[in-house]
Amino acid sequence: RRARPVREVLFFPSRPCCIETLLAEAAEPGVPARPCPCPLPSGDTALSRLVRRLLSARRSLDLCLFSFSCPQLARAVQFLHRRGVRVRLVTDAQYMGLHGSQIGRLRHAGIQVRHDQHSGYMHHKFAIVDRRMLITGSLNWTAQAIQSNRENVLVVEDAEYVKAFQDEFERIWEEYNPANYSFFPQKQ
Amino acid sequence: RRARPVREVLFFPSRPCCIETLLAEAAEPGVPARPCPCPLPSGDTALSRLVRRLLSARRSLDLCLFSFSCPQLARAVQFLHRRGVRVRLVTDAQYMGLHGSQIGRLRHAGIQVRHDQHSGYMHHKFAIVDRRMLITGSLNWTAQAIQSNRENVLVVEDAEYVKAFQDEFERIWEEYNPANYSFFPQKQ
Repeated sequence: RRARPVREVLFFPSRPCCIETLLAEAAEPGVPARPCPCPLPSGDTALSRLVRRLLSARRSLDLCLFSFSCPQLARAVQFLHRRGVRVRLVTDAQYMGLHGSQIGRLRHAGIQVRHDQHSGYMHHKFAIVDRRMLITGSLNWTAQAIQSNRENVLVVEDAEYVKAFQDEFERIWEEYNPANYSFFPQKQ
Repeated sequence: RRARPVREVLFFPSRPCCIETLLAEAAEPGVPARPCPCPLPSGDTALSRLVRRLLSARRSLDLCLFSFSCPQLARAVQFLHRRGVRVRLVTDAQYMGLHGSQIGRLRHAGIQVRHDQHSGYMHHKFAIVDRRMLITGSLNWTAQAIQSNRENVLVVEDAEYVKAFQDEFERIWEEYNPANYSFFPQKQ
């Protein structure tokens, strides 16, 4: 029998927290994780809840993120990739090269990344876990947003909303196919 | 018998459109609106759908917006205010004074506005209509975002999600009460 669909709202700013225990538990479920020696507390925060939702991925993780510079969220995404989850990431061309961006690191790790070539922003901030759970809101995946801004994230396990966002993801994924990139100066 | 709860997803960019007909219809329901002489088409777009949802407000409209510079959305909000809908607006202190911001105009019209005094951003972008319908997503209420960016807006008529956002709105509204503002230089 299926569990009740997830319905959650997370508000930020989040207290800083260590996510090493969450990663260790995800790597070896059932084995109590050794406490991390870092000075950050490892409590229940908006960030730890967001990470938990991401780490529940078993097959796929589709990310559509304007800005991605939070090292902790990048660690969670890399962990899933190493584990065999199919990660696809769409991002904004103007923001992916900024100082602190995690996009290069994720590409180096072998994760597929596509970006726009427009002057308009790819301003979405959503994730879809296993084509089943939608995580969306105002939150850019940056340490500044997580720790300092008033932000919201909705977690929705609802086929109708998930389908609308999955379709949008597939449209963008195809539109940003590198085969379509132009490497010549654009006309003004 | 109650209508089925609204569940809608809007994706942007939106084609430009004229909303004068929508405003005229809202002002005089049942009376066919005269066609607007402006050159913009008045079709069914993501923007016109967003405006329609806002214009359905009868009692209250609570707005929590990082950035608000779109003149069409400001016209819709002013229309509701003039009609007697109780409009409250929370915004970001660093963005409200930017060129093109509609915040000054809305204040002049008599709409209550409150803002933060923090270095972090008030980065939410949501609206609550009649404490019943939540409108939230990645979209800042700017012409650039509406016309040029990839953006999403969820429209959710669901008591649980609405309550979470209404509570967040009331927390921020109270926190940003002008009685709490500090008019002395902040310590660094």
